[in-house]
Amino acid sequence: MVKEKESIAVIGAGSWGTALALVIADNQHEVRLWGHNQNQINEINQNHTNEKYLPGIELPSGIKGYSSIKEALAGIEIIILAVPTKAYREVLGQIEAAHDKPLTIVHVSKGIEPDSLLRISEMIEEVSSSEWLKDIVVLSGPSHAEEVSLRHPTTVAVSSKNMKAAERVQDIFINNNFRVYTNPDLIGVEIGGALKNIIALAAGITDGLGYGDNAKAALMTRGLAEISRLGVAMGANPLTFSGLAGIGDLIVTCTSVHSRNWRAGNMLGKGQKLEEVLENMGMVVEGVRTTKAAYQLAQKYEVNMPITEALYDVLFNGEEVKKAVDLLMNRSKTNEMEELFNILDSRQQD
Amino acid sequence: MVKEKESIAVIGAGSWGTALALVIADNQHEVRLWGHNQNQINEINQNHTNEKYLPGIELPSGIKGYSSIKEALAGIEIIILAVPTKAYREVLGQIEAAHDKPLTIVHVSKGIEPDSLLRISEMIEEVSSSEWLKDIVVLSGPSHAEEVSLRHPTTVAVSSKNMKAAERVQDIFINNNFRVYTNPDLIGVEIGGALKNIIALAAGITDGLGYGDNAKAALMTRGLAEISRLGVAMGANPLTFSGLAGIGDLIVTCTSVHSRNWRAGNMLGKGQKLEEVLENMGMVVEGVRTTKAAYQLAQKYEVNMPITEALYDVLFNGEEVKKAVDLLMNRSKTNEMEELFNILDSRQQD
Repeated sequence: MVKEKESIAVIGAGSWGTALALVIADNQHEVRLWGHNQNQINEINQNHTNEKYLPGIELPSGIKGYSSIKEALAGIEIIILAVPTKAYREVLGQIEAAHDKPLTIVHVSKGIEPDSLLRISEMIEEVSSSEWLKDIVVLSGPSHAEEVSLRHPTTVAVSSKNMKAAERVQDIFINNNFRVYTNPDLIGVEIGGALKNIIALAAGITDGLGYGDNAKAALMTRGLAEISRLGVAMGANPLTFSGLAGIGDLIVTCTSVHSRNWRAGNMLGKGQKLEEVLENMGMVVEGVRTTKAAYQLAQKYEVNMPITEALYDVLFNGEEVKKAVDLLMNRSKTNEMEELFNILDSRQQD
Repeated sequence: MVKEKESIAVIGAGSWGTALALVIADNQHEVRLWGHNQNQINEINQNHTNEKYLPGIELPSGIKGYSSIKEALAGIEIIILAVPTKAYREVLGQIEAAHDKPLTIVHVSKGIEPDSLLRISEMIEEVSSSEWLKDIVVLSGPSHAEEVSLRHPTTVAVSSKNMKAAERVQDIFINNNFRVYTNPDLIGVEIGGALKNIIALAAGITDGLGYGDNAKAALMTRGLAEISRLGVAMGANPLTFSGLAGIGDLIVTCTSVHSRNWRAGNMLGKGQKLEEVLENMGMVVEGVRTTKAAYQLAQKYEVNMPITEALYDVLFNGEEVKKAVDLLMNRSKTNEMEELFNILDSRQQD
C-alpha cells in the first residue's frame, strides 16, 4: 500500500496508546509516543518494549518515545489522545501550551464526564480554543490492545463532525489487520463506547450470580436497547448501536474475562462489597463513573434506563445485587421496541 | 398470577419442545407433549423425565405425554410446533388430518427452506388450509433449552401477522423466569433466528483459527449488518435485528460452546474437512442448510452478504478456510452503514 507518510504524536503510553502507535508505525508513518514516565520512555527507545502495558511485544523501531510534550508536538498536525478521561482537562492544557501547528485530535477514550455530562469530544471542544484545535475525531470499537499488538484482525469505527478529517485518520490507521470504517454519527459512536461499560458491569453481576447464558444475552440486548434510547434522545442514529461502536464493543467487553468492568461486576455478583471490589481491582473501573453520569443523563432526557437505574441503586444506594437483578427480570410485559419507537416519534414531532 | 387455564399441545419432544412444555406447565396450563417414540412418551408419563434431551430434569406432573397425535389434538386450539424444520411438511400433514378445532400454530424452529426459500411461517401457510389454520405465531430468542428447564432467567420475542394471537401466546408463556416480549415484525423475527446460525458457523471458524475476541466481535457485528440488509430487503424492520431475535440470539449462539453450529465451525477452523466435521457431529448442523438458502436469497434480493458468500465458498466450493476469512477482513474500506442506508433508500423509492 503506497501512502503519504505522516508524522503523528500519540499522547499516552498505556496499553491502548502503545498498541495504536504500533499500528501507525506498521503503516510506515513517523510515530512519537509521549508519556510522563521517563523510565518507560527510555525503555521504549532503548529496548523497543513497554513491558508494563504490553508484555512480550516488540515495538517497531518507527516508534520514538518522548517525555517532553513540546518536542513531541513540534511540526505535528495530528495527535492521538489516549490518556484516562479524568486526565483530559489537564493534558489538554499542556497540549495547548505546547502545540506548534493547528491540531486534529483523535480521541480513543470512552466515558462521559460526571456532573458536566459532556461527551469526550464536547469536553475537548469546551477546553480548547479554535485557534489551535482544527478537528476532533473519535476512534472506537471492539479492540483489546493486546490483540491489536499481536496483529490479530481488529475492526473499529471513526467519526467526526468533519468527515474529511475522519477519512484522513482512516487512511493513517487502516491495514490488513486493522480495519477502519467511517460512521458519520459522532454522538452515537461516543455514547456507544461510553455506556457499554455499564452493561459490562451488569453482565459481570449476572454471571457472578450464576444466571446463565440466556440471561446474559438478554441483558446485553436490553442494555443495547436502553443505550440506544438514550443515544437517540441525545440525537444519535439508532443504527449506530448495531455497529462496531455499539454492539461490537459491547460483545467484546461483556464476554471477555479481561474486561475490568466485567470483572468488577462478577465480584459483586459473587457477593463482595463494592469497597472490597474497587480495592481488589487496584485501578479505575470506568463503568462506575459512567453509571452515575448515565443515570443523570437518563433523568435529564427523561429516558427509561432500567439496567442503569438498577446498577445505580446497587453502586450508590446499597441495594442488594440479587434483588436488583430479579426486579429487572420481572418488569411487566411490553412490546420489545415500543420505548425506542416512542422516542423516535417524539423526535420527529420536534 | 391468576390466568385463564388453557390446554396446549406441544408437537415434538426434543429438548426445546420439552423445555417449553415445562414453562407452560409451570404456569398451570394443561400440556400435552407429543412424540413419535413410545418409549420416550412412557418415560415422560411414568418417570416425569426426558433423559435423552433434558438429562437430570424432573418434569412437572402437568405434562402428559402422547404418542397419538389425534388424542393430543382433541379439543386443542393452540399447538407449539417444535420439530426439526425438515420434518415440518410431513408433520403438518399429520396435524391437518388429526386436528379437532381451528388451530393457532406457534412455531419455535429456526431456518429457511432451501430451494423454496420460504420462511417457516410462509411454509406453514403454503401447506395449510385456512379451514383449519387460524393464526401463526413465532417464538424466538436467546434460549438454551437446558437453562430454561433449570428456570434460569430467559427472555424471548413473539410475533405474528395477528398480534392478538401473539399476545395470547405471550400470556401463556410469561412468568418470573421466562419473559416474553411482543414484536410486530414477523419477517425480522424469523430471519434473525434463521440466519444467526450462519454467523455462528463463521464465528466458530475464526475462533478455531485463533483470531481472537476483536475479530469475533467484528465478525458478529458485520454478520448482524448483513443479516439486517437481507432482512430489510425482504421487508423487515432494521431495529428487530438489535433485539432479542437478532443480536440476542446471535450472542448466545456465537459465544456458547454448546452451540452445534459454533462447534462445527470451530472444527473447520482447526483444519478438519467438512465431511469429517459433519460425521463427527452426528446430527444436523442447521447453519449449513441455512448458508445455502441465504446465499440464494442474497442473489434473489441483490444484497451484498460477504460473510455468507465466504462461508458458502468454504462449504460448497472447497475454498480454504483461512483464505476465505482473510479475504473477508481485507475488503476495501467503506462507511459502516452505507449499504444498509442504500437498501432503506431504495425501499422508500418503491
